[in-house]
Amino acid sequence: MNESEILAMINKLAGDQNSNAIIPIGDDAAGFRFPSDTSIITVDSFYEGIHFNLEYFKLEDVGWKAASASISDIAAMGGTPECALLSLGFASSPSPGEVSALVGGVLKSLDACGCELVGGDVCRCLGGLSVTVTVAGTPPESGPVLRSEARSGDWIGVTGTLGDSAGGLFVLSSIRPSLGEKYTSLIEAHLRPKPRLEEGRLLSSAGVTAMADLSDGLSTDLGHICEMSGLGCLIEVGSLPVSDDLGLLIENSGADPYEWVLSGGEDYQLVFTAPPEHFESASGLLSIHGFKTTHIGEMKPESFGQRIADESGEITKLENIGYEHFAE
Amino acid sequence: MNESEILAMINKLAGDQNSNAIIPIGDDAAGFRFPSDTSIITVDSFYEGIHFNLEYFKLEDVGWKAASASISDIAAMGGTPECALLSLGFASSPSPGEVSALVGGVLKSLDACGCELVGGDVCRCLGGLSVTVTVAGTPPESGPVLRSEARSGDWIGVTGTLGDSAGGLFVLSSIRPSLGEKYTSLIEAHLRPKPRLEEGRLLSSAGVTAMADLSDGLSTDLGHICEMSGLGCLIEVGSLPVSDDLGLLIENSGADPYEWVLSGGEDYQLVFTAPPEHFESASGLLSIHGFKTTHIGEMKPESFGQRIADESGEITKLENIGYEHFAE
Repeated sequence: MNESEILAMINKLAGDQNSNAIIPIGDDAAGFRFPSDTSIITVDSFYEGIHFNLEYFKLEDVGWKAASASISDIAAMGGTPECALLSLGFASSPSPGEVSALVGGVLKSLDACGCELVGGDVCRCLGGLSVTVTVAGTPPESGPVLRSEARSGDWIGVTGTLGDSAGGLFVLSSIRPSLGEKYTSLIEAHLRPKPRLEEGRLLSSAGVTAMADLSDGLSTDLGHICEMSGLGCLIEVGSLPVSDDLGLLIENSGADPYEWVLSGGEDYQLVFTAPPEHFESASGLLSIHGFKTTHIGEMKPESFGQRIADESGEITKLENIGYEHFAE
Repeated sequence: MNESEILAMINKLAGDQNSNAIIPIGDDAAGFRFPSDTSIITVDSFYEGIHFNLEYFKLEDVGWKAASASISDIAAMGGTPECALLSLGFASSPSPGEVSALVGGVLKSLDACGCELVGGDVCRCLGGLSVTVTVAGTPPESGPVLRSEARSGDWIGVTGTLGDSAGGLFVLSSIRPSLGEKYTSLIEAHLRPKPRLEEGRLLSSAGVTAMADLSDGLSTDLGHICEMSGLGCLIEVGSLPVSDDLGLLIENSGADPYEWVLSGGEDYQLVFTAPPEHFESASGLLSIHGFKTTHIGEMKPESFGQRIADESGEITKLENIGYEHFAE
């Protein structure tokens, strides 16, 4: 397909949405009427060979995951996504089936969050498929939840379970195909992560002090909260929530039990901080709505450093072992 | 530099801006207070080897041009850019000087338009440098100028001169280095295009019916206005505005005199339509502000097709010979 055929297909797939768009898709820029004059806005690029591998990923998975990663940034502020732009780079002219699968995945993720595709661009690039999703949304009424507002003594919590996506990647890249049938939930966590929008909004309404999404791994993303709040932290290894399937995989594979849990990226769960009394009520509120939260540690003064206590109580440095794009 | 060092440098370079940002740069998402609840928003990706070649482009030029291309989309709606997100993909770890030059170019372009850098992301990619700029802005009070509202009988106009960027690329890729000294204005047009924001706002206020920026070349971009308005057009070749330098280059190089002018992309001038009486007053208004506009033709019914009259009056089909990313 050529550029204008691709754009025409995207317009058709995007179809009639809700719509607060004030300009039909396909003009120089998109236009959107937001519920207020204050918006939150984020962009994430997904590159073939770095963020995904077409050996494991269907094109629909790539589209889903790229859109979900950007929506997850909105969830981490307690916000609501409203509209999205999609920028696609193809190394060679794609077939209609390829465009339909890729854009279909993006639209499924956006639709699930009530977010509308309003524009974007398409061009050729070198080095493989490139998918960039910009999402604009609305902050919660109480204002966006930042990374910089944690206080010493706040409890640290996470939603869901940790390390499932990293375990899923291990299974997908394993040479034992039978593993895949056994660990479908982990594979799903890697290929089709779910942005934690409702959890983010509930946590914001419950007065959490700081929040981030787990895109680069707990140690890195909690590290950002520490640095931006000028604090340290202490994590209790024994409290980290691990799914049954991941526990089984760790046992069967002989993997380091905490590498995936502490440093595995792309879980898109939320890490948050709150004073103990608010923490309890926040956890209670999420529980009423069917969401699991776990208390995993406490914020400390900066001089304490970022540390982790193992099951015997021994305290060591929490290395920033999350994903780093330019690691040596 | 690693990812967090690159982000820290971008934050430092972006520095203290105006600021309607409600979230300091570096959190999960950016936050911005717009002058109204209606925004216009656009994204453009620039890929090494496709949109630019580091043989001719300094990194500062790449940053400038990528930002200017997105701002130009806002100009084409008659709008005002407010804030921007920058997504960078590097094939290998960049040096501080490289990051500083690239982001410096982005910031210079944004600053020149009163547009603030509020966030973005950085990661590794394959296949060369990738620069994606999202710009959000405000439409004019009378609403954004669309591509779809031209009417049969409207006159067609363009700002500035056409084909300078294509001529500049010819000079840059020429094996005769002496050419460069002679045609600095054409090289500048290619490396450092200027978004036509003030022209766009004035044209919008003067009641033009449709507008687009010349990113893919006059034949393609006017073609979009025709298609989206359900109309045809007739262009008078003899009226197309050509700069003295481009005229000289065409003469000296023996190039097809109209290929660059009709199909050369990336001029980022504006093409617009207006009923004849509004056209005259719009041109007058722009002239008062020191901007050149040229009447180059007329919108026709769809059945007329998209056509061009040569100097002898002979009418032929205006081929869509602008830049097509997946041309066979």
